[in-house]
Amino acid sequence: MSCFAASLAICAILNPRKQVCILGTGGGGVMEAEKVVIIGSGPAGLTAALYAFRLGRLPLVIEGPQPGGQLMGTSNIENWPGEQKIQGALLMQKMREQVQGLGVRFVSETATGLEKCENGFVISTKNSRYPAQAVIIATGSAPRKLGCPGEAEYWGKGVSSCSVCDGPLFAGRPVVVVGGGDSAAENAQYLARLGSKVTLVHALGALTASRAMQEMVLSNPAITIIYDSTVTGIEGDGIAVTGVVITNSKTKSERTIPTDGVFIAIGLIPNTQFCRTLLECRPSGHIITTSHTQTSVEGIYAAGDVADMRYRQAIAAAGSGCMAALDVDGYLKKI
Amino acid sequence: MSCFAASLAICAILNPRKQVCILGTGGGGVMEAEKVVIIGSGPAGLTAALYAFRLGRLPLVIEGPQPGGQLMGTSNIENWPGEQKIQGALLMQKMREQVQGLGVRFVSETATGLEKCENGFVISTKNSRYPAQAVIIATGSAPRKLGCPGEAEYWGKGVSSCSVCDGPLFAGRPVVVVGGGDSAAENAQYLARLGSKVTLVHALGALTASRAMQEMVLSNPAITIIYDSTVTGIEGDGIAVTGVVITNSKTKSERTIPTDGVFIAIGLIPNTQFCRTLLECRPSGHIITTSHTQTSVEGIYAAGDVADMRYRQAIAAAGSGCMAALDVDGYLKKI
Repeated sequence: MSCFAASLAICAILNPRKQVCILGTGGGGVMEAEKVVIIGSGPAGLTAALYAFRLGRLPLVIEGPQPGGQLMGTSNIENWPGEQKIQGALLMQKMREQVQGLGVRFVSETATGLEKCENGFVISTKNSRYPAQAVIIATGSAPRKLGCPGEAEYWGKGVSSCSVCDGPLFAGRPVVVVGGGDSAAENAQYLARLGSKVTLVHALGALTASRAMQEMVLSNPAITIIYDSTVTGIEGDGIAVTGVVITNSKTKSERTIPTDGVFIAIGLIPNTQFCRTLLECRPSGHIITTSHTQTSVEGIYAAGDVADMRYRQAIAAAGSGCMAALDVDGYLKKI
Repeated sequence: MSCFAASLAICAILNPRKQVCILGTGGGGVMEAEKVVIIGSGPAGLTAALYAFRLGRLPLVIEGPQPGGQLMGTSNIENWPGEQKIQGALLMQKMREQVQGLGVRFVSETATGLEKCENGFVISTKNSRYPAQAVIIATGSAPRKLGCPGEAEYWGKGVSSCSVCDGPLFAGRPVVVVGGGDSAAENAQYLARLGSKVTLVHALGALTASRAMQEMVLSNPAITIIYDSTVTGIEGDGIAVTGVVITNSKTKSERTIPTDGVFIAIGLIPNTQFCRTLLECRPSGHIITTSHTQTSVEGIYAAGDVADMRYRQAIAAAGSGCMAALDVDGYLKKI
């Protein structure tokens, strides 16, 4: 898709050879480029907005399909420094009110494309195109889901994708972990250490986790493994999870086991579909960054889970959002 | 200093050839090694403690000479995500209550040494020695100070070392920036952008900042530079700063200029005196980390300003504290 063909003529000139466009500079009826557009509105995006605004860069936030990010789907969180216990949604509301109070602008759209132009970038959404001198990508990742009945209804009410976040709420209680890779094994180990009786439900006949992780799981008396099986239903009393339906993929037999928590660890999908052609990404889809938040394209920075396969915590995402804003500030000074 | 000679015989055996000692394992009257000792209790240290505890690693925090870290010396902060305006000291109190509520242990001591042992490390303080399987260093840095009358009295009441933190409180008001390097130039530029009338007081006859930064400062009509001069006194009305005494180093003449804020940007000193012989550090004294929090010695991790010359923000420090705790957890699983 060419810049010229855009519904809003914000890119003035297309250079077909270079596949780049030239941003409008405010004259001649073309829309002026934003200093910085932040894509995503979770802890990373909102912290980037907070810092970018305070640095005088008047950011525009394209908030995405789930304003507030993954924390909106959690119940109480106890691992945000300074908040003994706070609803994930309330924490995000406080962050949002803070930056909106400063004057940060939000648009309720989702980025669908990102192009490089001669002197900046253009972010496409379904209905608009936003020119920007610099971009911070903070679109996070989405846990791969089971897609079974009850999963959506009990998400945040017993169903979770983060044992470090929600595990302590289930200490000493029966939980089910779904998956068989490193992440599932770590979740199971961690929950067992908290005193939970863990049932690991894995689709295959053997774990796919690293050998060391496998050995730990297999030798842990608090962990029971059900192989060749998938969770095909999540049951509850309307308030919280009470059990899961497990289907054996070979015999097709079903059984229901009681549980208080269901931890789904079958992978995360970083939300990078819109920028994978422009930026270097890992095979997993995560954006590759060097020197903290720098992506493979100068002027584009990434913060939070979209570039983080390893820690995936709200406070780490917020920290990297701050870094991205400071990096953008340095970049804008330079150009 | 050998482990064997320690006042508490917590290191059982010294191997003189390797300059390493062997940690006690709880038997035979020797003190059991901690899983993880966290040195420092600012945002990085307390977030590391929060995560380490939740990961089941029961950390011990050696809180250092300034419990709570640099934020204790600030007034209102407005750049902690989720808190529109909060006293730095209150934010740190909330973090501390949160981790103390979990059961994290604190000792009111300051690390004076760090040694590698055969199977871990020993942290020395004036009165004790603490063996540990893993260590997180989060001792932060201290702004280099002027040492003039009024500086201590008005610290946090108009005197600051962080314009990004405190600058917006002085928007549109006269401020003095002390220093002539990149940091001072950036502070001056940033404060001018906020609408402040900035007086830059520099000890030498020319700025030492990078050429680009110098040009920006020199061409900014909101910034006046006083060369060959030092701030030799800070005056106030008991509540807030009202002026500074400036002494010309050549003529020795003194004058007082009115100001609402004094930003001291003459360098930061990372608190790494106790570990510089063991860990690779930059010429500035900052600990060198790779892969986020890993220091040059396996089992020792660094978080926050002690390893961060670039961002130096509380939220970034907290994020790296979280990362260090997760890295320690991975390390302890491995050993």
